[in-house]
Amino acid sequence: MSRNRSVTQDGREAGRDERILIVGAGLVGSLLSIYLARRGLRVEVYDRCSDPRLVDLSAQRSSINLSLCERGFKALDRVGIGNAVRACCVPSYGRLIHDEHGGVVFQPYGDNGECTYAILRNDLNRVLIDFAEKSFGVAFRFDERCLDLEPTTTTVQFEDAKTGLVHNEEATRVFGADGVFSKIRSRLERLPRFNYSQLYLDHGYSELNMPSIEGVPWADQRLSVHLWPRGGYLLLGLPNLDGSIVCSLHLPLEGEPSFCALRTERDLLRFLSNSFPDAVDYMPNAVADFFGHRINYLVTIRCFPWTFDGRVALIGDSAHAIVPFFAQGVNAGFEDCLVLDDCLEEHGFDWRAVFNAYQTRRKPDADAVSDLSLHHFNELRDSVGKPTFHLKKRIEKRLSELDPERFVSLYSMVTFKATPYAEALRRGRELEALIQRIMETPAIADKTEIELNRLIDQAVAAV
Amino acid sequence: MSRNRSVTQDGREAGRDERILIVGAGLVGSLLSIYLARRGLRVEVYDRCSDPRLVDLSAQRSSINLSLCERGFKALDRVGIGNAVRACCVPSYGRLIHDEHGGVVFQPYGDNGECTYAILRNDLNRVLIDFAEKSFGVAFRFDERCLDLEPTTTTVQFEDAKTGLVHNEEATRVFGADGVFSKIRSRLERLPRFNYSQLYLDHGYSELNMPSIEGVPWADQRLSVHLWPRGGYLLLGLPNLDGSIVCSLHLPLEGEPSFCALRTERDLLRFLSNSFPDAVDYMPNAVADFFGHRINYLVTIRCFPWTFDGRVALIGDSAHAIVPFFAQGVNAGFEDCLVLDDCLEEHGFDWRAVFNAYQTRRKPDADAVSDLSLHHFNELRDSVGKPTFHLKKRIEKRLSELDPERFVSLYSMVTFKATPYAEALRRGRELEALIQRIMETPAIADKTEIELNRLIDQAVAAV
Repeated sequence: MSRNRSVTQDGREAGRDERILIVGAGLVGSLLSIYLARRGLRVEVYDRCSDPRLVDLSAQRSSINLSLCERGFKALDRVGIGNAVRACCVPSYGRLIHDEHGGVVFQPYGDNGECTYAILRNDLNRVLIDFAEKSFGVAFRFDERCLDLEPTTTTVQFEDAKTGLVHNEEATRVFGADGVFSKIRSRLERLPRFNYSQLYLDHGYSELNMPSIEGVPWADQRLSVHLWPRGGYLLLGLPNLDGSIVCSLHLPLEGEPSFCALRTERDLLRFLSNSFPDAVDYMPNAVADFFGHRINYLVTIRCFPWTFDGRVALIGDSAHAIVPFFAQGVNAGFEDCLVLDDCLEEHGFDWRAVFNAYQTRRKPDADAVSDLSLHHFNELRDSVGKPTFHLKKRIEKRLSELDPERFVSLYSMVTFKATPYAEALRRGRELEALIQRIMETPAIADKTEIELNRLIDQAVAAV
Repeated sequence: MSRNRSVTQDGREAGRDERILIVGAGLVGSLLSIYLARRGLRVEVYDRCSDPRLVDLSAQRSSINLSLCERGFKALDRVGIGNAVRACCVPSYGRLIHDEHGGVVFQPYGDNGECTYAILRNDLNRVLIDFAEKSFGVAFRFDERCLDLEPTTTTVQFEDAKTGLVHNEEATRVFGADGVFSKIRSRLERLPRFNYSQLYLDHGYSELNMPSIEGVPWADQRLSVHLWPRGGYLLLGLPNLDGSIVCSLHLPLEGEPSFCALRTERDLLRFLSNSFPDAVDYMPNAVADFFGHRINYLVTIRCFPWTFDGRVALIGDSAHAIVPFFAQGVNAGFEDCLVLDDCLEEHGFDWRAVFNAYQTRRKPDADAVSDLSLHHFNELRDSVGKPTFHLKKRIEKRLSELDPERFVSLYSMVTFKATPYAEALRRGRELEALIQRIMETPAIADKTEIELNRLIDQAVAAV
């Protein structure tokens, strides 16, 4: 098989003199190290943090979890680690929408058991690092803070966090997998013709966790993502294996209600009781969670080029930080590794060609997933709670029954089909326009099922 | 007079404990120092470069000049330095458009002697620094490179370029007037909620100077800006007092023609002869100018907020770097000083209030001048050479005769009227839409003067 040959024999020869340095041992950096090492390359991964495998779990500040979907698993499966990751996940088969009065409605993701997989960030990271180290001989250097990069010589300056000693590491390639506030990217930013933007949302979030949901009336719906959409704001809950729920309260930074307006414990508790009556009793640490931590801000970062001179490349959040509402951050970053791997397959170790192909191919999809993620925030906090949303979903479902290939919901394309993001964005807009045309039918909400289906058939025939 | 009182007595008392530190002794930093010092504040200006008054002029690499207009002079006149600057300027009363065959057409800026003023950057800078130092006791520290800022304590770290010594300077306020690649801004960029973007044009430019235009057939038109618009590219010339012309060749970076495509001396000379037949003979140093220097890139930088905690503020290019095509960079920066001065007049030394008012009031205008500058590039390189452009200008002129208050050309609003940029942008678009409607009249180009005027009158009546 051509892939295996390239990955093993050719790789070891052509890549013999390579020293690959990855800055960042997070999710994308760890997976990237596996992808590169399996092509016979010598790979070292540096990270400012301590080895997450040695950190006392109970002492962790936050249990931030994330959601893996089809495209994330595609990238994990290619290197043979998908099943090990699946074992640490909790599946969610849909959204449980909580209304203002404590009522709930379950919206399944699909009729065929479609689900997303919630996993703790640290669990995933540990699995990846272990696999990279043990199966591929990747060298991890923790507690090494990246201070600077000299792009022309691919030399990275690190500070050993334990000794304070500063040392330079010269490599043949440097990958910046160092996240949203990437040091590697900030160095490239100073090069001529580097386009860059960082734009913050006017919303932030605070974690408000539910340590246990034993006895809640909606407990039997545990295998779902929880949503409390309230128009201008939103409470979001992702389930953990242990039965707890990691919740995030997304609020405007200013205005009413907002982080600014909630000044006292009383303000907070009254707000939570009024807005989330079926949730507030299960948040015993709400006050400490809310006032004891900084507000988390959300930023969208775009840049280009992602590579320099065939020597330096950005990947994952450092190339395209997105807001978390479509739960695509880690999935997009993992897919970056897939795309880079495809480019290596096509161009061998002609790194200029590899990096050019990688950034040219991937940039439109990264821009699309940025847009999709921003747009999905509006849907989650606002649309999903409204009657028109349910009607739209009914129309969308009928359309997909009529022509399952042609009419695929945006959510499915992004989450279950691994459709390239730019294509999903384009087709999603077309579908949205078609649904919108049907929605403009007078008295659409009063139509019977049969009448509605006839309208939809006519609209499709007219396209 | 209320202004004078505030500027002298109140200022000296309330501002007694202030130590104002301006990073950047360029045009905007120097003018800002005058504005602040005249309010009784103690002001120091640091700059990485040597004192421009001590630099040997003949040894200067470049004679980059710039263009001052009404709003720039308004800011200079308020502090009483306008006339000293006017004495160093060369007025330009319009554009001389050079076509592909060496033919020229003069487009005056207006019927009332409207003109812009070309001046050498260094001449202007020297006048400002002298004035700040001698009339207002501003302290200038040259050869001091800014390394870092600690925003919470308003402490700036400098490296003395002569000794290499690093020292910290603690101030009460810090102004970043340190230009496009501002160090102060790059520090603010790391703060949460700082929105930022840098976007490069796909064009660059190279200086191609004409040391003397003695004997050129178009020499009698010296008091004009020279334009060789060629659609995708452009040669631009600004006159100097000594009769030389500073030219810049604006080309795409890739494609045909482009910097990339012009590889050899032969390529360059053939290209210049074909594209600029009436100019090439007066550029004896074209080859050295073009191949001996780096390509100059053009970037648009936007950010917000411009201030931090009532302690740090950005001004000029560091807050809003724009492309040079509308010749507004220095004018916009000078106007920033005016706006800040208005805010000081209103709020005294309540710096939080001052900085909030300054950034809130000024940001929309900065965004507008960024857009105007980008858009004007298209007009200069493309539209001005076309027959439709002349027809549009005729319509525009007729409109302004009909109602001089209501119909003011965009160029006039920006350059001669000092209309706020955001208003100029809005009104310019309305005027453009009206002209476009008239242009859509069938066979408009064949109309007689009388027919055209009647059409215009009808269109105005219909608005």
